[in-house]
Amino acid sequence: MESELIDYLRQRLPPHPCLRLGAGDDAAVLSLGDAADAVVTVDMLMDGVDFRLEEVDPLRVGRKSLAVNLSDLAAMAVEPVAAVVAVALPKRGGMALAKALYEGILPLAAEFDVAIAGGDTNSWDGPLVVSITAIGRTPTSADGSPTYWRRSGARPGDVLVATGEFGGSILGKHLDFTPRVREARLLGEQYDIRAAIDVSDGLAIDLGRMLAESGCGARLDLASVPISRAAEELAHRSADGSSPLDHALGDGEDFELLLAVEANTAAKLIAEQPLGVPLTVIGQFVAEQGLWQRDAAGAISPLAPRGFLHEFD
Amino acid sequence: MESELIDYLRQRLPPHPCLRLGAGDDAAVLSLGDAADAVVTVDMLMDGVDFRLEEVDPLRVGRKSLAVNLSDLAAMAVEPVAAVVAVALPKRGGMALAKALYEGILPLAAEFDVAIAGGDTNSWDGPLVVSITAIGRTPTSADGSPTYWRRSGARPGDVLVATGEFGGSILGKHLDFTPRVREARLLGEQYDIRAAIDVSDGLAIDLGRMLAESGCGARLDLASVPISRAAEELAHRSADGSSPLDHALGDGEDFELLLAVEANTAAKLIAEQPLGVPLTVIGQFVAEQGLWQRDAAGAISPLAPRGFLHEFD
Repeated sequence: MESELIDYLRQRLPPHPCLRLGAGDDAAVLSLGDAADAVVTVDMLMDGVDFRLEEVDPLRVGRKSLAVNLSDLAAMAVEPVAAVVAVALPKRGGMALAKALYEGILPLAAEFDVAIAGGDTNSWDGPLVVSITAIGRTPTSADGSPTYWRRSGARPGDVLVATGEFGGSILGKHLDFTPRVREARLLGEQYDIRAAIDVSDGLAIDLGRMLAESGCGARLDLASVPISRAAEELAHRSADGSSPLDHALGDGEDFELLLAVEANTAAKLIAEQPLGVPLTVIGQFVAEQGLWQRDAAGAISPLAPRGFLHEFD
Repeated sequence: MESELIDYLRQRLPPHPCLRLGAGDDAAVLSLGDAADAVVTVDMLMDGVDFRLEEVDPLRVGRKSLAVNLSDLAAMAVEPVAAVVAVALPKRGGMALAKALYEGILPLAAEFDVAIAGGDTNSWDGPLVVSITAIGRTPTSADGSPTYWRRSGARPGDVLVATGEFGGSILGKHLDFTPRVREARLLGEQYDIRAAIDVSDGLAIDLGRMLAESGCGARLDLASVPISRAAEELAHRSADGSSPLDHALGDGEDFELLLAVEANTAAKLIAEQPLGVPLTVIGQFVAEQGLWQRDAAGAISPLAPRGFLHEFD
């Protein structure tokens, strides 16, 4: 029952230095620090679309629900502070399901020092829906102004750098990925990153979004795209003729970062490899609008923005 | 389609002085002012539970989805700043539905100077789900410390004061109520309010929550509870023998405020009636734990915490 779950959570939730008032009142109160701006992002995950409860441990669903939000904060290079959790639970088995979700949410929250500040617990006859809103705060630069990455800062001549590998995330990574929060904050502190986005819907489609905001184009070097083993396995398994590269470009839910940097920064990043995860140059931003691919032979052609889109009419 | 809706919204959303970066990036960035704390609340509404799309204009559903969040901020007497909107849309007719929701959300957001800072738009084969997270900021007291109302400040001897009238909200008010944001901020600035809650699930059950946080009891004067015409109409219509008072105590979704104040403040509030909506003394906080009722003849007995609860097992 709703109040029983709230009591359970209030016992489980640890204190947090930013949390002035947590679960149990009409709203949560967060102290963000004087110079910080608040950063807000929300993601809603639904049974049958973003996961299948009949196939997956709900703990992993809970973890993913928070992780996708932390990935959005990573794409801005800001510091996660808190999250609020809204759920629509199936009436039958809802309490056990809710507790299992939190068994996935709470350890990830602890790992990234995120306060679970409250939420809204509902029940209905429909499938599970989890909507988490994450709150972050901007780091403060030397002159006191807030700093964060945007999608819109890429310029022709900039180099496109990616973290990690792409494709085949449906085989497991889409549930168990580690959001690139620590990597983003290290890069944000030590390097001049001009623009960034996280790959949630697909490398090609999310790169396209970065281009739309930046007002320029990009040429992806197909031979340089890091292809995951899962992408290869999926290509091997599937009968539709799609290659590992196709999976890398279009599968989505990689939750890696795409970065726009100046050429000299790219050279430094590649030489220093400051992250535990590889950084790879995968293309270049160009003046000509649109998304282009260069194959191994050097031929250039348009690249369709493949990936996952919610369709409705 | 998702991107078409986002483009539509970016054209519709007005600028806001607190919104450094709005819809269209990985997260929104809000400037809250140096001394302010961030206040966060979330409510999820589901078709068939909180509204019935087959009976109700979706514009009113959108409006309600934001209004319930603003009511939570009113219960803390804080200033609304922004909201993010996550929706699960039915695939068929989803675009028209989404636009209609925003036709309800945007005017209410404008009325209360709330920036729509972003969201997450999904589609599926299930019913409509809307989850809005509202962000507020605390007013700053003369000594620079943040101020907000909590549920936990009521003490024995305090007087229980309510805004407005109760009961029968299902006849229309649950969709069209005005959140008591302005009233709360005026009261917060001019009077010493010791504790507050908004009535979402029911007068009796929400008063019980205030008592649980405050660690005291309360005695409700049944003859003083302001009963709405809708409660009387509902009692007249319904065959289950419930009285207008029963509806006032248990219907919920009144979105009025319950306030705990010292006796002299209560006297001032009643004499001055500083709000457009009536303030009424409806009971007293007492040392003995629990929720009590005093009938017109003066007899005192326990009052069950009636109201709406999400049930799941």
